[in-house]
Amino acid sequence: MTPPKSWLSIPEQSDFSLANIPFGIIETKYSSRDKRAGIPIGNHVLDLKVFSEGNGFSKLSSLATEQRSVFSQPTLNEFAALGQPTHNLVREYLQEVFSESTSYPEILKENEALKKEALLPKHETKNHLPMQIGDYTDFYAGVNHAFNAGSLFRDPANALNPNYTHLPVGYHGRASSVVISGTPVIRPSGQILLDQQNSPTTPTFAPCRALDIELEMGCFLCKSTALGTSLRINKDAETAIFGYVLMNDWSARDIQRWEYVPLGPLNGKNFATTISPWVVLPSALEPFRAKKLENKTQLLSYLKEYREDTVYDITLSVDLTIPDEDGGGDTTTITRVSSSNLLWSFPQMIAHHSAGGCAMNVGDLLGSGTISGKEAGELGSLLEMSEGGKKEIRLAGMNMRKYLLDGDTVTFRGAAGDGVGFGECTGKIYMSSSN
Amino acid sequence: MTPPKSWLSIPEQSDFSLANIPFGIIETKYSSRDKRAGIPIGNHVLDLKVFSEGNGFSKLSSLATEQRSVFSQPTLNEFAALGQPTHNLVREYLQEVFSESTSYPEILKENEALKKEALLPKHETKNHLPMQIGDYTDFYAGVNHAFNAGSLFRDPANALNPNYTHLPVGYHGRASSVVISGTPVIRPSGQILLDQQNSPTTPTFAPCRALDIELEMGCFLCKSTALGTSLRINKDAETAIFGYVLMNDWSARDIQRWEYVPLGPLNGKNFATTISPWVVLPSALEPFRAKKLENKTQLLSYLKEYREDTVYDITLSVDLTIPDEDGGGDTTTITRVSSSNLLWSFPQMIAHHSAGGCAMNVGDLLGSGTISGKEAGELGSLLEMSEGGKKEIRLAGMNMRKYLLDGDTVTFRGAAGDGVGFGECTGKIYMSSSN
Repeated sequence: MTPPKSWLSIPEQSDFSLANIPFGIIETKYSSRDKRAGIPIGNHVLDLKVFSEGNGFSKLSSLATEQRSVFSQPTLNEFAALGQPTHNLVREYLQEVFSESTSYPEILKENEALKKEALLPKHETKNHLPMQIGDYTDFYAGVNHAFNAGSLFRDPANALNPNYTHLPVGYHGRASSVVISGTPVIRPSGQILLDQQNSPTTPTFAPCRALDIELEMGCFLCKSTALGTSLRINKDAETAIFGYVLMNDWSARDIQRWEYVPLGPLNGKNFATTISPWVVLPSALEPFRAKKLENKTQLLSYLKEYREDTVYDITLSVDLTIPDEDGGGDTTTITRVSSSNLLWSFPQMIAHHSAGGCAMNVGDLLGSGTISGKEAGELGSLLEMSEGGKKEIRLAGMNMRKYLLDGDTVTFRGAAGDGVGFGECTGKIYMSSSN
Repeated sequence: MTPPKSWLSIPEQSDFSLANIPFGIIETKYSSRDKRAGIPIGNHVLDLKVFSEGNGFSKLSSLATEQRSVFSQPTLNEFAALGQPTHNLVREYLQEVFSESTSYPEILKENEALKKEALLPKHETKNHLPMQIGDYTDFYAGVNHAFNAGSLFRDPANALNPNYTHLPVGYHGRASSVVISGTPVIRPSGQILLDQQNSPTTPTFAPCRALDIELEMGCFLCKSTALGTSLRINKDAETAIFGYVLMNDWSARDIQRWEYVPLGPLNGKNFATTISPWVVLPSALEPFRAKKLENKTQLLSYLKEYREDTVYDITLSVDLTIPDEDGGGDTTTITRVSSSNLLWSFPQMIAHHSAGGCAMNVGDLLGSGTISGKEAGELGSLLEMSEGGKKEIRLAGMNMRKYLLDGDTVTFRGAAGDGVGFGECTGKIYMSSSN
């Protein structure tokens, strides 16, 4: 499907055609550090605070005037809390405003003053975290990754634990470690076993030597529930979703391996998790629904979905850029995989997370877990590509890697197609200054 | 040591003598749901907002006028962020104001108008969560409990994993599940194995049948750090502590047992964690320092403390009240144990948590893990008392329990002695309305 045409020039390959309209938090050249909501359109960003204050929403009568203050907030939480019908109304209205044949040319198309103030070239804006994250939970729904990692951490015969196909396994993450794309990633130090073979129980405190990525989808919630209540599958679990981002759950494999039994990962994960800046709404992804991977286990009813196409077919890719001697870099695309490689959908994760009465909140972030396919070239972590650090990964420019070195940059992209994508989720590795 | 005498009548057994002065968040009969800071003194509570607005702090010149707005906030986060020296100044000033021989009688002792407005009988006030909790991490530093639980979940030979004595094991918890003492606890439903022997991999979705308590100390932080930096032992880890509360990390053992491998507990824990309302400052606990349990493992230097007395000897007790036919209840004290039964101190937990660069924030909550002694009558969970649900626990009034039933009430108390204590941390079990 070709995205609707706009009076604004939008590059053909842009993730941000009129078919998308994701939301984010920006500061601009003119906002003097004051954060506000924005949307990307092609290579431009619309400052929704300035747009709103310039009567940009005057033709959207269903959005009450007092509700428009949500766009002046430093996070999207208040906007998210208005609920999916309102998100969709605003998205559709903005599509109309930017459409070539807009019914409201006076709003922006022919309003040179507002265009100048509100519609900025992307490089005149900077993104911030889109949401204030109350709690962050990371699942493990990428069954191919779970199998591969389980094989390496334990053994292939016991790679998946018996609970794996019965419930979406997950753990509580660290909200304070979630950062926006572009934030430097500082190599953590921690307890690691330098010689696992000969000294399997004598750790050393040292910088991580097995710094890894995890290719994930993130999901922000737009509904809050009280303790003791739940969000039900096929009912309110799906409508509790605000939207999606790309997520790199950076992992220190050597720290994680020693610390994680029996209560799960802590310092192996809590030094940084990077997300892409724009929250893509479910309505923008609706054309890209895909079936989950088959689960032969008979599910309990609180996890049974009416339909199987509750994940999305988005092409996720991972670029690894290695610094070269000239100050440039050699980039290799090390992974290209569909985001549909999940055994569990986000509505199932939400239904499970809240099934025991856990309070969920607007702004909560859920991670899918690492997404890998079954083939080489479809793996979502270096752990899998290097077979647990045993094998070099061949890269462009005669480079080799098992895990990340200082100066390496990793960039995730996600393209659903037809002008709908996620932009970049990127981070560069830095040595800790305390080492 | 006898606590200093006050002009206000303070019952001899009170946790809240002048030697204590903990801080909390209250609403009062007069505040119309507006939250503010308060301190308990005997059976009274001082409304610090009203006190401050009534020039109560006028003799504390080191607390700038603009800083006094911290007492009007709905959480203690801003007060906490002022740092330990300020907390101590305020505590000492309030001790002086309430002292029998106060140098400032005009402030409150002889100020009938302010006394009437600001100093309320406890029953005219209600407590709320003292802090906005950014992240909550629960450790596992009670080695006696870890050994007992490990023996039951695995076997005595492998009860403690090799990492246990090298680092404070912990997991990220769910901040949204933390509630104030007195909040109803709703029995969670979840995936449980009804017949572990014969169907070890076929779960049922049902109300938890092994609802348990965990007797813990909680610790709130008063310092924020950036990602990539850390709080160091013997330096800033100790001064990052705002204060302490009692904590009941309610646990659904059957849900936890099935879900927790390999990433740790999720729904077995995230339905409720209750804390006591008043945050007791480290300065109030200084006289009760005690030695940690001996750890024979050679520690890495980032965890080595200059002194061994970095935990506290507070007598923790657990009362279990079973409803009787007359609408009353039979109460049994099932546990009495010193809070010093820890292998790791809070400064060690903080140093470890942040060692890899995890960002810590004012308002973060850390839990000690369940505190048990070595003797019967000193156990911090029903799991241990009932030997994994195999043995009935005998209670007053001919009652028996393995785990908690609906209608049961559990109350933790913590008494350091000499007029310093924590008040109550209590919760009553209710059936889920959706069952």
